[in-house]
Amino acid sequence: MSVGIGVIGAGVMGADHARIISSQIQGAHFAAVSDADEGRAKAVAEKHGAERHLADGAALIASDDVDAVLIASPDETHAAFVLACLGAGKPVLCEKPLAPTAAEALTLVEAEAVSGKQLIRVGFMRRFDPPYAAMRETLRGGSLGRALMVHSAHRNVSAPDWFKPENSISNSAVHEFDILRWLLDEEIVAVEAFTSKGKRGVMPNDPLMLVCETASGVLADVEVFINAAYGYDVRAELVCEEGTMELARPLAGDIRLKGQQALPFPPDWRGRFADAYRLEVQSWVDALGSNDAPGASAWDGYVASAVAEAGVKSLRSGEREEVKLAQKPGLYS
Amino acid sequence: MSVGIGVIGAGVMGADHARIISSQIQGAHFAAVSDADEGRAKAVAEKHGAERHLADGAALIASDDVDAVLIASPDETHAAFVLACLGAGKPVLCEKPLAPTAAEALTLVEAEAVSGKQLIRVGFMRRFDPPYAAMRETLRGGSLGRALMVHSAHRNVSAPDWFKPENSISNSAVHEFDILRWLLDEEIVAVEAFTSKGKRGVMPNDPLMLVCETASGVLADVEVFINAAYGYDVRAELVCEEGTMELARPLAGDIRLKGQQALPFPPDWRGRFADAYRLEVQSWVDALGSNDAPGASAWDGYVASAVAEAGVKSLRSGEREEVKLAQKPGLYS
Amino acid sequence: MSVGIGVIGAGVMGADHARIISSQIQGAHFAAVSDADEGRAKAVAEKHGAERHLADGAALIASDDVDAVLIASPDETHAAFVLACLGAGKPVLCEKPLAPTAAEALTLVEAEAVSGKQLIRVGFMRRFDPPYAAMRETLRGGSLGRALMVHSAHRNVSAPDWFKPENSISNSAVHEFDILRWLLDEEIVAVEAFTSKGKRGVMPNDPLMLVCETASGVLADVEVFINAAYGYDVRAELVCEEGTMELARPLAGDIRLKGQQALPFPPDWRGRFADAYRLEVQSWVDALGSNDAPGASAWDGYVASAVAEAGVKSLRSGEREEVKLAQKPGLYS
Amino acid sequence: MSVGIGVIGAGVMGADHARIISSQIQGAHFAAVSDADEGRAKAVAEKHGAERHLADGAALIASDDVDAVLIASPDETHAAFVLACLGAGKPVLCEKPLAPTAAEALTLVEAEAVSGKQLIRVGFMRRFDPPYAAMRETLRGGSLGRALMVHSAHRNVSAPDWFKPENSISNSAVHEFDILRWLLDEEIVAVEAFTSKGKRGVMPNDPLMLVCETASGVLADVEVFINAAYGYDVRAELVCEEGTMELARPLAGDIRLKGQQALPFPPDWRGRFADAYRLEVQSWVDALGSNDAPGASAWDGYVASAVAEAGVKSLRSGEREEVKLAQKPGLYS
Repeated sequence: MSVGIGVIGAGVMGADHARIISSQIQGAHFAAVSDADEGRAKAVAEKHGAERHLADGAALIASDDVDAVLIASPDETHAAFVLACLGAGKPVLCEKPLAPTAAEALTLVEAEAVSGKQLIRVGFMRRFDPPYAAMRETLRGGSLGRALMVHSAHRNVSAPDWFKPENSISNSAVHEFDILRWLLDEEIVAVEAFTSKGKRGVMPNDPLMLVCETASGVLADVEVFINAAYGYDVRAELVCEEGTMELARPLAGDIRLKGQQALPFPPDWRGRFADAYRLEVQSWVDALGSNDAPGASAWDGYVASAVAEAGVKSLRSGEREEVKLAQKPGLYS
Repeated sequence: MSVGIGVIGAGVMGADHARIISSQIQGAHFAAVSDADEGRAKAVAEKHGAERHLADGAALIASDDVDAVLIASPDETHAAFVLACLGAGKPVLCEKPLAPTAAEALTLVEAEAVSGKQLIRVGFMRRFDPPYAAMRETLRGGSLGRALMVHSAHRNVSAPDWFKPENSISNSAVHEFDILRWLLDEEIVAVEAFTSKGKRGVMPNDPLMLVCETASGVLADVEVFINAAYGYDVRAELVCEEGTMELARPLAGDIRLKGQQALPFPPDWRGRFADAYRLEVQSWVDALGSNDAPGASAWDGYVASAVAEAGVKSLRSGEREEVKLAQKPGLYS
Repeated sequence: MSVGIGVIGAGVMGADHARIISSQIQGAHFAAVSDADEGRAKAVAEKHGAERHLADGAALIASDDVDAVLIASPDETHAAFVLACLGAGKPVLCEKPLAPTAAEALTLVEAEAVSGKQLIRVGFMRRFDPPYAAMRETLRGGSLGRALMVHSAHRNVSAPDWFKPENSISNSAVHEFDILRWLLDEEIVAVEAFTSKGKRGVMPNDPLMLVCETASGVLADVEVFINAAYGYDVRAELVCEEGTMELARPLAGDIRLKGQQALPFPPDWRGRFADAYRLEVQSWVDALGSNDAPGASAWDGYVASAVAEAGVKSLRSGEREEVKLAQKPGLYS
Repeated sequence: MSVGIGVIGAGVMGADHARIISSQIQGAHFAAVSDADEGRAKAVAEKHGAERHLADGAALIASDDVDAVLIASPDETHAAFVLACLGAGKPVLCEKPLAPTAAEALTLVEAEAVSGKQLIRVGFMRRFDPPYAAMRETLRGGSLGRALMVHSAHRNVSAPDWFKPENSISNSAVHEFDILRWLLDEEIVAVEAFTSKGKRGVMPNDPLMLVCETASGVLADVEVFINAAYGYDVRAELVCEEGTMELARPLAGDIRLKGQQALPFPPDWRGRFADAYRLEVQSWVDALGSNDAPGASAWDGYVASAVAEAGVKSLRSGEREEVKLAQKPGLYS
């Protein structure tokens, strides 16, 4: 009984998911792929062995051979495709963001809550990253005591031209917000943004620093550095009452060459989170449509956007901003 | 088109392979399991969703729903089951050792060579370990120059009662011999064993040291320490003309607690080589029955045993012993 | 021509300085020691070979055999002894703080400025710590580009009973303020304090976080955790335009034991900064009384206190507080 | 009471010792320096503030203002100068080797033994290196159990033109032999040399491997790689019954730049063993002429040469060679 997965979007992310589904996932097959650029859909279908390709994502969702949908199309199309999946009663894994604004994400939450069943998962893949999982497990194990602080840094090599300082928060730090909530199992209640003088020759105010406070009083400082140049790097240290834990670096062997002992960095997130993407998709397939499936729910997608909006507001106001959340529907508790 | 895999042996290794096949492998399913203790086979079948369980491995091999066979039964049964797979024309992945002696392994090589097709793969899973793969890839990349030496250590927590010094070579160092051949892409031509005074209260002469020489003149020293107590640990440093590379440690995050900054060791090989086992089985399924499939061939299984026999001979003689190999059939070149 | 050094204070710090002077310093000898508890002075004099011991620090300063003075007496006595040294025209190395308040430190700055000669050095020994020195040298070297952020953490094992949250800033973070100014070669212009929920069972709000901004727009977050339990640990990462640098850990060799690969932490600052103390005293002796001698000047001592006072003010107000400095006398430029 | 030290030899090593004595040592001063090239002696005297310079080492030894002698002249002159020091009754610290052959070193041992007083120390500075000291202290502490193996590597960037394979043993591995004896507190009884195919374009058979056996049955493998290119690097892992310890790397902070996280290597031994040289000289001054002063005795100098000769013999014979030692005079026990 293999699950037929349809992928919407045949760009970099969609193609990578197609590769994962077709080569690494137990219990599923790559049924179909759609892209507004049908030639691109065709190329991915052929490369990764999908039976069909389409131009129309809605038609893919409606197809009988598609049991579940993975959305990796442009951000602004996510919400409509997710709604269509809800309408069709098909489980969907949607790349983040769920919707362009927290308000729009909330309408998806409400629509799903009405249905009484969690069909939506949001692609916050870090929850499946073995180093983050080890950190969470260690915290739960209790040997370190309660969490008190988290120091984290999110560094990319460089930003695309269109990237603006608020994207550092809405596109990048949003991963940090989700993982903090998941790691600490509580809400972020306030965010304050600080701007450094910034690197020369790139977008203004890069890197940024965000100080987040959780409901219980944990402090988390988040550096977001989009033009960090040296490599893709995600760092975190969890500070607890009795000790601390650092996020593991990707597996690599020290090389001693030309005057240095060195470890390489991957150029982007695919090198860093390859295991996380595989485990995310496998776990989605394994618990398809279950309310307590692992991974981020629609509610989690909404909250991450709401925290990001508080962060962007703070970036503009220069003040500490509180995060205001809607009432959480019973479906998500 | 899913490949039906039959597993022979429902002990620790067989059950772990059943888990992997049923939960992590694309393009295959767990068709059947056999064990002389049929209750044990039944338990594994139920836990991991095999359609059938049997007491008789030969019957499993003959089953129509079994397209390929994974042998994880007691060592002394391997050769007969592998021969039966050859007879049935079914691809087989056999846990090491292929046979109790190099001479017996050679008869399997010869039988396969006659068939003209490589159906046998031997479970030297380290070839699929990402840290070893990175080391090999780096060596091939050429930035370090040619290989000159390898320093390696193989450490277990403790030995079972029956373990004898020669098992340090035939059961443990045999992994080192295979990975050295694969890493350096050449044969080991001589081995000299050295005995230390040994740890107190355990089997004699543990740890051992082996100095291996390859055809081109690379030297490799191998420490084998079966009662190393502190954890399961596999170390290697590749020394080349322009630099060196160390084998990566398993992914873990530094914990600062009780006066120390520490990284944990796994208790045994399953924690260390979890990725390697998964990748080994996936790659076997992906290239089923192809002559140039990745992984160790029957010839490789024979050679590893032949090197181990030279090592055991040196342990007894106290002299450097040359490795003598049969003529390599054309099927393996 | 050996310099006779008189040590005021025969407690833990004074005794340690006496040990350093008498055993590790070229060009100086341990001439005399004073302590209000003369028995304590006598014990240190005998142990480390001083010619004389006294009860009265002022008398020590006046002694002909004392060419230079090292003050390690209780904090509240520092300012008066420093003034006496200025009066006697003798070089003095004063343990931090120079005075109980920034205002009082400023009177010492003004008194020294009138004299036209820098006789005062303040014991911010981190400036002599080889890891910090390497970080500063790397930054100056330019390969990393300009500094943009600093992430730092100051962790002690536990606090004495009298310790209050503001001491986390005035006694501990003050070291961070000095080293940030020295590392970045610019002033801190604002500080904002954040309180975490705090560790249970100890003083309130431990750990704290401070976000500092420099004149050019570098951001520095400082964790101060006085009851960190696991060891004495000082961490820093300098984030620059092209890369980052971490503060080196003290020299130690990995131990693999009982399931872990581990590095030990020292219990307190003496283990961490042993080299820094030696180099501080040697460099003081080498450049005795020179205006451009390395180490923190009276002005630096004043500024560190002024930044600490802004930090304490922020802790109370919950707001970002600006650092206000007096006009810098020409003697210090 | 300052000790006047005379330095024989104003080359690289002599100049470095002059710098150390004149700037870092408590209780001593740089009294005089001699060199066959008197201009060189004069330059070092002026740079490091010696009162006198001479062309004649024997005259330096005889000088009244020289209380103790440090020999850093060419290897072949060591033995005669050491004998002169014995004749003058002056303590001497002689750079290794004590003499060109073990037999000649033995004559110095015998001469000293007759005098009944240990005046000679040999410059095996690694005994004062904090990482080696920590390893020895940890071994003595007992938590790791008894020593069973040592894995070590000695790597230089490149060899001078005159360097031959046997110099890898007599000039470089000799440091390893001394430190093994000191670390394990027992004698090396046999050595077997193994030649790798060697790096291309340099002296033959570089790197070498030596397998040493101690009296109690500890095995030590030593890689000596004189043209290792990437940096000056000394590695060691001590393998014990309950765990292992690695030799610490020199203090350095990770730099993340250009795709890598990296630590630098020093180009030569001075960067690696700067602390060791300082501590060696300070400890020599502190315990001048005492029979139980720390550091290598004349006997230790003789034994290191004897082990090296067994190593060179094995390099030629291809066989395991036993180390044969003279009777140890009572003065050294």
